[in-house]
Amino acid sequence: MQSTILSRRDIEFMLYEWLDAEALTRRPRFQDHNRETFDAAIDTAEQIATELFAPHNKKSDQQEPHAVPGEHCLDVKIIPEVKTALDAFCAAGLMAAGQDFERDGMQLPTVVEKSLVAYFTAANVSTTSYLFLTIGNANTLLKCGTPDMVKRYVDPMFAGKFFGTMCLSEPQAGSSLSDIVTRAEPDPVAGVDGERRFRLSGNKMWISAGEHELAGNIVHLVLAKIPGEDGKPIPGVKGISLFVVPKFLVNDDGTLGERNDVVLAGLNHKMGNRGTTNCLLNFGEGKFRPEGQAGAIGYLVGKPHQGLANMFHMMNEARIGVGLGAAVLGYTGYLHALDYARNRPQGRHPAQKDPAKPQLPIIEHTDVRRMLLAQKAYVEGGLGLVLFSSRLVDEQQTAETPEAREHAGRLLDFLTPITKSWPAQWCVEANSLAIQVHGGYGYTREYNVEQFYRDNRLNPIHEGTHGIHGLDLLGRKAAMLEGALFKSIGAEINKTVRQLRGSVAVPSTASAALPAAVAATVAGELLAHAAALETAWQGVEQVTQTLYAAGDMNKTLANASVYLEAVGHVVVAWIWLQQAMVAAAALASASAADADFYRGKLQACRYFFHWELPKVEQQLALLASIDTTTLDMQDAWF
Amino acid sequence: MQSTILSRRDIEFMLYEWLDAEALTRRPRFQDHNRETFDAAIDTAEQIATELFAPHNKKSDQQEPHAVPGEHCLDVKIIPEVKTALDAFCAAGLMAAGQDFERDGMQLPTVVEKSLVAYFTAANVSTTSYLFLTIGNANTLLKCGTPDMVKRYVDPMFAGKFFGTMCLSEPQAGSSLSDIVTRAEPDPVAGVDGERRFRLSGNKMWISAGEHELAGNIVHLVLAKIPGEDGKPIPGVKGISLFVVPKFLVNDDGTLGERNDVVLAGLNHKMGNRGTTNCLLNFGEGKFRPEGQAGAIGYLVGKPHQGLANMFHMMNEARIGVGLGAAVLGYTGYLHALDYARNRPQGRHPAQKDPAKPQLPIIEHTDVRRMLLAQKAYVEGGLGLVLFSSRLVDEQQTAETPEAREHAGRLLDFLTPITKSWPAQWCVEANSLAIQVHGGYGYTREYNVEQFYRDNRLNPIHEGTHGIHGLDLLGRKAAMLEGALFKSIGAEINKTVRQLRGSVAVPSTASAALPAAVAATVAGELLAHAAALETAWQGVEQVTQTLYAAGDMNKTLANASVYLEAVGHVVVAWIWLQQAMVAAAALASASAADADFYRGKLQACRYFFHWELPKVEQQLALLASIDTTTLDMQDAWF
Repeated sequence: MQSTILSRRDIEFMLYEWLDAEALTRRPRFQDHNRETFDAAIDTAEQIATELFAPHNKKSDQQEPHAVPGEHCLDVKIIPEVKTALDAFCAAGLMAAGQDFERDGMQLPTVVEKSLVAYFTAANVSTTSYLFLTIGNANTLLKCGTPDMVKRYVDPMFAGKFFGTMCLSEPQAGSSLSDIVTRAEPDPVAGVDGERRFRLSGNKMWISAGEHELAGNIVHLVLAKIPGEDGKPIPGVKGISLFVVPKFLVNDDGTLGERNDVVLAGLNHKMGNRGTTNCLLNFGEGKFRPEGQAGAIGYLVGKPHQGLANMFHMMNEARIGVGLGAAVLGYTGYLHALDYARNRPQGRHPAQKDPAKPQLPIIEHTDVRRMLLAQKAYVEGGLGLVLFSSRLVDEQQTAETPEAREHAGRLLDFLTPITKSWPAQWCVEANSLAIQVHGGYGYTREYNVEQFYRDNRLNPIHEGTHGIHGLDLLGRKAAMLEGALFKSIGAEINKTVRQLRGSVAVPSTASAALPAAVAATVAGELLAHAAALETAWQGVEQVTQTLYAAGDMNKTLANASVYLEAVGHVVVAWIWLQQAMVAAAALASASAADADFYRGKLQACRYFFHWELPKVEQQLALLASIDTTTLDMQDAWF
Repeated sequence: MQSTILSRRDIEFMLYEWLDAEALTRRPRFQDHNRETFDAAIDTAEQIATELFAPHNKKSDQQEPHAVPGEHCLDVKIIPEVKTALDAFCAAGLMAAGQDFERDGMQLPTVVEKSLVAYFTAANVSTTSYLFLTIGNANTLLKCGTPDMVKRYVDPMFAGKFFGTMCLSEPQAGSSLSDIVTRAEPDPVAGVDGERRFRLSGNKMWISAGEHELAGNIVHLVLAKIPGEDGKPIPGVKGISLFVVPKFLVNDDGTLGERNDVVLAGLNHKMGNRGTTNCLLNFGEGKFRPEGQAGAIGYLVGKPHQGLANMFHMMNEARIGVGLGAAVLGYTGYLHALDYARNRPQGRHPAQKDPAKPQLPIIEHTDVRRMLLAQKAYVEGGLGLVLFSSRLVDEQQTAETPEAREHAGRLLDFLTPITKSWPAQWCVEANSLAIQVHGGYGYTREYNVEQFYRDNRLNPIHEGTHGIHGLDLLGRKAAMLEGALFKSIGAEINKTVRQLRGSVAVPSTASAALPAAVAATVAGELLAHAAALETAWQGVEQVTQTLYAAGDMNKTLANASVYLEAVGHVVVAWIWLQQAMVAAAALASASAADADFYRGKLQACRYFFHWELPKVEQQLALLASIDTTTLDMQDAWF
């Protein structure tokens, strides 16, 4: 049976046929790699994900972690399958898949690394969260921490001995991080790392993987405020600094020392993502007194008052990670629905209703195919967007010229809010359609798709809500560097359109295998898509100018969420057109099975251009009208 | 604090200011009623729903019914609060709210009865399901059953002593009822009701309220097939007959007799709606042998082979009920989100970011207002649609002339698939937005909105899936009686447009209280809405002709779901325009609080016309192009 986690054929299409991951092996950093080493890593990921992550996905949901009174504070009980899976992941060296060889890493390109992540997340998002929070944490410390911190915390994290978290939110400060009140005061006890030692006190909310016994230690990265000269916290984001606060202090020889004063105050009980502990943590509450003093011991990471900038290293990575998670939860739901639709007999064709004939598999019903095709368009569009962005990370880090690296960085900055938000919107919709294909069965916990729907609903909320990313895209990214990011994307979209116009003769002439009429049809269709994309992007350009000409930032930004959604749809249309161009070119000389695969890509692309992209017109018209319906609405009128 | 179940102000607006429920009291059937008696019934419903239904809504979800081994078969355990609530409902006489006085009913109009239902469903959809399945069952038997069945089953159901179910689906036959295989054979034992007595055997799936101990007896209405002359079931819907199958046989004096052979085979575990038992039931399995013979005893309702037509009495009622449930689950979610948004401080205005100033309630953020206004537009539009349809039921039954009754029936037939499906789509979206307004808190089970989202996701599935209703609307209703239903709706929409054009001078001249400029703005805005509605309906008319001219029913019906959604949006725009006209007229002489309320109606109407109705254009264009993307998609290409 075909895997219902991800389509390996599609992953290979994206990596090798479209995004040309093999080209990266010509760069110094990846020169020891080739397609075989990439494939071997994916094999490992697919195998471990299939054998150890997917099987307990439902059990984790049904028997979620729960707090139990421990000797000194609350502990957490988690089903044992989670640790078994995590240990296998770490033992395979996957925690350091993207790290340098000298750090015992695999030195894989980001686009390949994200393909590995895709398997684990699709198989079991809750168990996987423990890992990717750790990797994000370690990467941040690697960038901003001292060599001692790297030795003490980062190396054990990449070795899978310690796990990590990011502690930003507080009960009164979620989206508004400037309002955090956790305090960090210089530690009166001088230590080795004297000037970096602080004592933290405060409460952190929504901390994923904040407490567990899955690894020897938990390394918290914590935002807190160092009091100003008047002894009061400095208001706003300027007052925020970043600290590393381990659950157990780490001795110079790497062994664990005293218990630090970070304790679980309680667990949040989520609709989905239940297998990941989500914690309210108290820092410096007094349950422990490390080194005889009050306050959790934390070490300043980077410069004081630069906490948010430092944390953003982790957050940008996390945002691509959220987009990836959303896309692959949609993807596995789609594969489950496809499998069900092929095997569930129900009903007959409208024109052949003879009840004496056997029922048809429901995939024969056009409306079921609509739901499957929509899912395919969303999830392969979403995964394509995330891998495209991941490929840009590789360009940003390893492209030959500084100009190319800068260009990639600009594209990536612009795309990040979309890469996070588009899959989080549309792949939840895909999960809803997967339920719908299953009918009543899909609504029960006896099947898998309802869990994907619940799990995925988190993604429009965390790592910046949908609305926050709308403001980021329209309020910051679109205007940044005098519109340079925006122009970079426009240039790339136009390049694709020009490439297509320059190459359309190819499929109809180069191939005898493909009937000329068919090839011409495909070429004509792609040209029509290209024209639609060009028009849509011109619409985005115009509306961006119109919005900035409104003369009132409240009006400019009032409908930023719609802007995010419209630009996202245009960008994903572009992603689809790129995939379709590859498929069209390959169709000519393809085997029968491959030809079916490429036909599917072309049909999903058609779906996106006929059914989805036209939605943008209404959104752009609304934006261009500087509609103030929501801005004018008054509290008292509700 | 304002109720978070429903807005009483809005219910009264809809009933009295818009739908003129008081006019019904001039009809003979309702002449003993007046606004005071209606209000008293609503008071009772609101009080019982608030005090006894809402408080255990979460507990029912968290401690769902579970099967336990009984003496002879599986029993079900349900938290005791459910029976307390149901008993209070029955004791208040609400089970017979719509029934004749002579049947100890309240003889309330349907539009008022549905307003009562709205409170219970919004407060606790799971507990309420037991009641409304019973009422639907009793109404069907009242219409199609014998006088003896009415006495034996219907009277005890309206008295709240017995509860009822509808048993249609089987594991292999959900949407395709023609494929049921439950057999009904003439009972060899002659009884009082000899020729109607059959023995049933088979399995029924998805039976809500199929087993419990909440009432003295359970009256199942069961679809089954009587074998034809060759001893085999007659294929197709023609072979289906309807039977009443009580859990306990009922003696002539109304006391309970022998246990019938209907037993619980297992419970389904749903994502939401957990408090209602959802059962796999076995009929004639052999656990019991009533009157010493094999097979569950059932009594034929109506004529043989007319089962589906008879069951449709219940299903049309149930479809309006599903739309109502969807609308009010969205509504209560909206009120919860509104309450949260008014009380949760977070962040500051883009133009005033001084972090030393206190945070603002999030309702101050435009994007939060967008989400609240969208919810308001969806839920008040959805509830409006359902109450409008309910009002048509009253017209169909009590209008003065046969022509008026027929006209109302045609409108209702056309609107039924929309009344079921539109709220089931958009009020789930409202629930998603309610979570989004809450941020991370909304995603947890510590708050209420995630449950509404899970509960409401059932509604696009049961009582005919979304796709089935698309086929019903485009394939049956649009063409029925040579388009007479379709023309009836068009005539009504045009009437509203004409009324508006004839009345727009009124608000700006009739009122000194309202500044003329404001009144003129409102009038101008409503005229613009009316023009947009007119254009949209013309678009629907054209596209319906185009689709039927396609010359191939597979092409005509391929995108029926899009048709359903487009027509639904146009219909709800019409519903909104009607509400806005009432609000605009009342604004002139309104108190300050009422003026705020009417302003809210006008703003939500504006939202619908600026943000929602324009979406229809893309859908109509897609339909008009006879797009075959989904029709052409091949299984092998997925």
